[in-house]
Amino acid sequence: MPSTFGNALRVTVFGQSHSEAIGCVVEGLPSGFAIDRERLSAFMARRAPGQGSWSTPRREADEPEFVSGINHDGRTCGAPLAAVIRNTNTRSRDYDNLLSVPRPGHADFTAWEKWHGNQDVPGGGHFSGRLTAPLCVAGGIVIQMLKTRGVRVRAHLLRVAGVEDEPFRAGLRTDAELLSQQIDALEERDGLPTIDPDAGERMLDAIDAARRDLDSVGGVVECVACGLPAGVGSPMFDGIENLVARAAFGIPAVKGIEFGSGFAAADVRGSENNDPFDATPDGPAPRTNNAGGILGGITTGAPILFRMAVKPTSSISRPQDSVNLATGKPEVLEVHGRHDPCIAPRAVPVAEAVCALSLLDAWLSFPPEGEQFTLGTN
Amino acid sequence: MPSTFGNALRVTVFGQSHSEAIGCVVEGLPSGFAIDRERLSAFMARRAPGQGSWSTPRREADEPEFVSGINHDGRTCGAPLAAVIRNTNTRSRDYDNLLSVPRPGHADFTAWEKWHGNQDVPGGGHFSGRLTAPLCVAGGIVIQMLKTRGVRVRAHLLRVAGVEDEPFRAGLRTDAELLSQQIDALEERDGLPTIDPDAGERMLDAIDAARRDLDSVGGVVECVACGLPAGVGSPMFDGIENLVARAAFGIPAVKGIEFGSGFAAADVRGSENNDPFDATPDGPAPRTNNAGGILGGITTGAPILFRMAVKPTSSISRPQDSVNLATGKPEVLEVHGRHDPCIAPRAVPVAEAVCALSLLDAWLSFPPEGEQFTLGTN
Amino acid sequence: MPSTFGNALRVTVFGQSHSEAIGCVVEGLPSGFAIDRERLSAFMARRAPGQGSWSTPRREADEPEFVSGINHDGRTCGAPLAAVIRNTNTRSRDYDNLLSVPRPGHADFTAWEKWHGNQDVPGGGHFSGRLTAPLCVAGGIVIQMLKTRGVRVRAHLLRVAGVEDEPFRAGLRTDAELLSQQIDALEERDGLPTIDPDAGERMLDAIDAARRDLDSVGGVVECVACGLPAGVGSPMFDGIENLVARAAFGIPAVKGIEFGSGFAAADVRGSENNDPFDATPDGPAPRTNNAGGILGGITTGAPILFRMAVKPTSSISRPQDSVNLATGKPEVLEVHGRHDPCIAPRAVPVAEAVCALSLLDAWLSFPPEGEQFTLGTN
Amino acid sequence: MPSTFGNALRVTVFGQSHSEAIGCVVEGLPSGFAIDRERLSAFMARRAPGQGSWSTPRREADEPEFVSGINHDGRTCGAPLAAVIRNTNTRSRDYDNLLSVPRPGHADFTAWEKWHGNQDVPGGGHFSGRLTAPLCVAGGIVIQMLKTRGVRVRAHLLRVAGVEDEPFRAGLRTDAELLSQQIDALEERDGLPTIDPDAGERMLDAIDAARRDLDSVGGVVECVACGLPAGVGSPMFDGIENLVARAAFGIPAVKGIEFGSGFAAADVRGSENNDPFDATPDGPAPRTNNAGGILGGITTGAPILFRMAVKPTSSISRPQDSVNLATGKPEVLEVHGRHDPCIAPRAVPVAEAVCALSLLDAWLSFPPEGEQFTLGTN
Repeated sequence: MPSTFGNALRVTVFGQSHSEAIGCVVEGLPSGFAIDRERLSAFMARRAPGQGSWSTPRREADEPEFVSGINHDGRTCGAPLAAVIRNTNTRSRDYDNLLSVPRPGHADFTAWEKWHGNQDVPGGGHFSGRLTAPLCVAGGIVIQMLKTRGVRVRAHLLRVAGVEDEPFRAGLRTDAELLSQQIDALEERDGLPTIDPDAGERMLDAIDAARRDLDSVGGVVECVACGLPAGVGSPMFDGIENLVARAAFGIPAVKGIEFGSGFAAADVRGSENNDPFDATPDGPAPRTNNAGGILGGITTGAPILFRMAVKPTSSISRPQDSVNLATGKPEVLEVHGRHDPCIAPRAVPVAEAVCALSLLDAWLSFPPEGEQFTLGTN
Repeated sequence: MPSTFGNALRVTVFGQSHSEAIGCVVEGLPSGFAIDRERLSAFMARRAPGQGSWSTPRREADEPEFVSGINHDGRTCGAPLAAVIRNTNTRSRDYDNLLSVPRPGHADFTAWEKWHGNQDVPGGGHFSGRLTAPLCVAGGIVIQMLKTRGVRVRAHLLRVAGVEDEPFRAGLRTDAELLSQQIDALEERDGLPTIDPDAGERMLDAIDAARRDLDSVGGVVECVACGLPAGVGSPMFDGIENLVARAAFGIPAVKGIEFGSGFAAADVRGSENNDPFDATPDGPAPRTNNAGGILGGITTGAPILFRMAVKPTSSISRPQDSVNLATGKPEVLEVHGRHDPCIAPRAVPVAEAVCALSLLDAWLSFPPEGEQFTLGTN
Repeated sequence: MPSTFGNALRVTVFGQSHSEAIGCVVEGLPSGFAIDRERLSAFMARRAPGQGSWSTPRREADEPEFVSGINHDGRTCGAPLAAVIRNTNTRSRDYDNLLSVPRPGHADFTAWEKWHGNQDVPGGGHFSGRLTAPLCVAGGIVIQMLKTRGVRVRAHLLRVAGVEDEPFRAGLRTDAELLSQQIDALEERDGLPTIDPDAGERMLDAIDAARRDLDSVGGVVECVACGLPAGVGSPMFDGIENLVARAAFGIPAVKGIEFGSGFAAADVRGSENNDPFDATPDGPAPRTNNAGGILGGITTGAPILFRMAVKPTSSISRPQDSVNLATGKPEVLEVHGRHDPCIAPRAVPVAEAVCALSLLDAWLSFPPEGEQFTLGTN
Repeated sequence: MPSTFGNALRVTVFGQSHSEAIGCVVEGLPSGFAIDRERLSAFMARRAPGQGSWSTPRREADEPEFVSGINHDGRTCGAPLAAVIRNTNTRSRDYDNLLSVPRPGHADFTAWEKWHGNQDVPGGGHFSGRLTAPLCVAGGIVIQMLKTRGVRVRAHLLRVAGVEDEPFRAGLRTDAELLSQQIDALEERDGLPTIDPDAGERMLDAIDAARRDLDSVGGVVECVACGLPAGVGSPMFDGIENLVARAAFGIPAVKGIEFGSGFAAADVRGSENNDPFDATPDGPAPRTNNAGGILGGITTGAPILFRMAVKPTSSISRPQDSVNLATGKPEVLEVHGRHDPCIAPRAVPVAEAVCALSLLDAWLSFPPEGEQFTLGTN
């Protein structure tokens, strides 16, 4: 079974929750780029466990070792970049009973149906949320590369447990400056990644309440990418929506995705949902952005905007009905081990990672004809 | 730019709205299958224009000619199956002004940005909804193949212009019989594809109202696939959600997709959203189906359930602001030609087609280990 | 089973010898190119049956109909180009006994082992040499596109039945002018495609002798491509050799391929086989070209040079030992129908086609960084 | 630029000669297989440097660490298998002058043309023969897997510096036992991998002579795979020849490949080259094997047989003409560092690796319909 996506830019993710290491191979990265390791660490830290009261105490550094793909000058060299992150807490015994009793809402059961007992069970094996760490290594590098061309990629928690953050101001061309300020604000936020700090506080309260109930909550992550030129992408099956959606559903717990006005578009009329074009000094440009920056799979030049639904963490400590796979008998399962009561906050940088990876892949693979991506100055 | 998707089963779509023909090549179809041409025609007819007052008068037969892939006995032969549908209304003059003035909400603008004037403009070119006809040819055949293994695939209009149909009863294992009856009912429906005929009537009224206003409406299509074994699919980027989503966003006007409880999962707790397992005579099985039949990208054996958001038809007859690409000056555009005031009804069989194609591809490419798909008896 | 190759430029071939039609879909062609139909027909004619005494009387025009991929101005439009060639002699009865008695040296037997009787047998089905016609459609277009950038692709019969033609003068940089004259001469040749007309005459005699003996002969085709820039291709599995070889083995009857000095390199020393570099006004360039224009999978700027071994036509009229698949009993087979006593001459333009397709794919997919292929002026 | 090949079974190779590590990711391996680490080490040792007088003193253990893909029981688990081999001699200074003066016959020049100085130069970077070590890790595992189904894969030196070994007895069905004995003998050979020990001795002498002359020699490697069922593979571009050739040209220094009678087929008549079918207790089978076990890209059940041409090592210590890339001036280059005077012996296990990987990929991806590969008992 493959764990690969992308065309001209291709990412392969490997590892299990309790294998020796996890990591990724990235093929097709532009050469000559000096990765800012400090910025990458800061990006990785946003996904790491143990960032606050809503998460478990941090135990692993998650620093990737780049074992290949870097030249003698410390720059990308055109050969596949391989990053390895050691698992320091391998072979935990917390998971012993999961070997035979699948957790509701988790892939334990389907992995068993697929590999008939050969799968690596502890910690979720290859299905673990931990596999998003190498995705963030690859994505964090690509975010830096896109930055050299003026593209900014940012996500926030739009909703958690019923608490709403202010949405991105990505719906009006004339709001570009306001959107930029929202992104600036998010870059400086310390706690939960919300535009409105107060919303973040209330989300924390709601998450805490779920934790005290031995339960969990889900959320909606909203992601924006500004600065992409028009003309990137492809009709039909390799459009921006197709590529981003395929990658986003690779994030465990994501169960829905929508672009621009998304599901809300189903309830309005065409005259409201269509984005009229204005003549601007830079040429025609859409006035509004219900399209989420994409028409016919191809970028319009307006911000790419999407939202993903993140289900509540399936590993909860409450007793749950399950079945012992060995005996076929019902069994009440209590999941031990530490789990995030809400995985959505840590999914925020992962959303940025898959967005950036998909967009750079589209730009390299399906550029406006004759205008392939090249690196700008750092 | 490719127009291909799939792994072991691969579909390539070709054609433009006004080219000589449109069609598809399907590689990897199991051999020895006698296509039921009558059933295929009936399936195609559900997508065809001109079915009722909510659509334009039918003008094209849309009968595919199978130019290859069939053996001397009329069965699939293992070689690529190519289907060609002639365009009989090519080179219409209705679209003349679209050559230089892009329709808001349509891909005219992005195609121009991508191909700098070389794209084929009339009727939307390769972006036309007409390209879903070959998708339905491929999908209609695969629906028949899946049927030999007891898999049923069906979609309906869950919502149009605020009018709601009864949802699929796919959330409880014990509702299987009720779900089956809903599918039976849909198979016998004549008008709009709704489970509740009354909802269909009210949707028609709402669509008519939009048409009278020279406007359009969108909708939500819900699709279910029952009878798939557990263990089909792959973790990460080739799971059922990834494959279905990638294909579904190939349908023009789709702007969102969700599986199982989808976006609603973001607002409930894990204890509500997790599906407990029951011991059944056939082994462990999920009691509820908030997962939409998919955990970790792999089928649970419960019905696959997803919903797609279809935006209102972008081609409307009201005057809209646009820009003349040749002069760079603003221009008010009035779109002539006949267009569906709501495209969602015709997207219903297309949803079934992409669902079936993605599921058979998953079954052939990523089966439960050692249990690859083979045809059952017709 | 797929019949597709290529990355950014992808070719899918469909059809059987006796299906309604054969054809191809080409995805990723640069847009804005006006195909010279006359030159394409001339190219196709070199592959067509019935060109001379060494071939069967011509019966089919093999003119492709472009059903998609061309815009209103007659230029490529960025959407997939689909070409359909009708089979006018379908369902011949010449092949009746082949349904159950496989021809030695042909794929009848392996197709039966693979598809258990479902395969399309008459005329070789999807394995027929006739499937090289759509390859030539795709390749003929791409040869024209490469020409706009100064790239010439040409092949000839290096050897047939022991008769040798003069080889290409592609081994010395200073011979560029001589090589160019050889290509010029081949462009004007009427009979068999040899540089030395006398060699062509003697090959004809040898082929005639084989025909009179109800037998067949093989040959070696040599192909050259001049004018490619240095830096095209990729290390390891997507280098020029990998791409060309993968495509070339798609031509029925090809059983070997070698680049540059090829198998002869195995018998010389490094000091003889290495190509020293000279300082030239255009920068460093290899003095000799034992590498066949490729080092590490990447072009050196010297001519790409390869040779393919074409086995003798397997369909011969002599009685041959075989086995009846239905009864399992031995049976002596006499193959009726008209067959070329030597397929190598018609493989010459096909070699050019796969060479051009592979090179443009490499140039689009793996260009010198930042220097992707764009069309020159026609 | 990708370094990946395969379909259902996919191998990605990473690393540079002097990066921290080299390695591979293998996706799609059947689960539940316990790798015999001792046998794998023995296989890797055949490729390792320092095996005898014809090679340099061994310095690196080349033991792969499996960082993922193995479950808690030590068996393959269905998730991607990642193997990492540390480079212990990184950042050597032997290669300083190669940074600006490309070695004739090596990829230094083309890498510079491709990446404009960003490539990793020392030791050949990603082009180094050292990258065949991870190929052997992947291939060595797959050879073990194929063994469980009775498939044996073996290669030998057919020719080095004009010295010929006895060829494989793979041309007559009735020679199966003799072929088996040849393979047995090769499995027990200590020195150069030849069937005739005396040929090995004479090859060693010829290699020594070249070394004393500060020069190098090439060779031909012949590889056989016995025991594959009929019906594996695909027509056109995914046949056995296509897949093996694509992978084989990923081995540095390979410049040609031929299957069965190969180039010799070009010089005989069809009546000699066709393989007649016999009725055998196991069904129809080819009497001779000029086809090398492949017709129409699909296995016949006879041994797969191919030969690859390996050019003489390009890194030789003799002074060679080159050009300084920085100054553009001619410069005489003397390559320091230790290099094998003949790389062909170490290419022997690599040929087995790419053969096994390609064949298992074909068996998993394109099996006889309904008969996909499953592991036998170990």
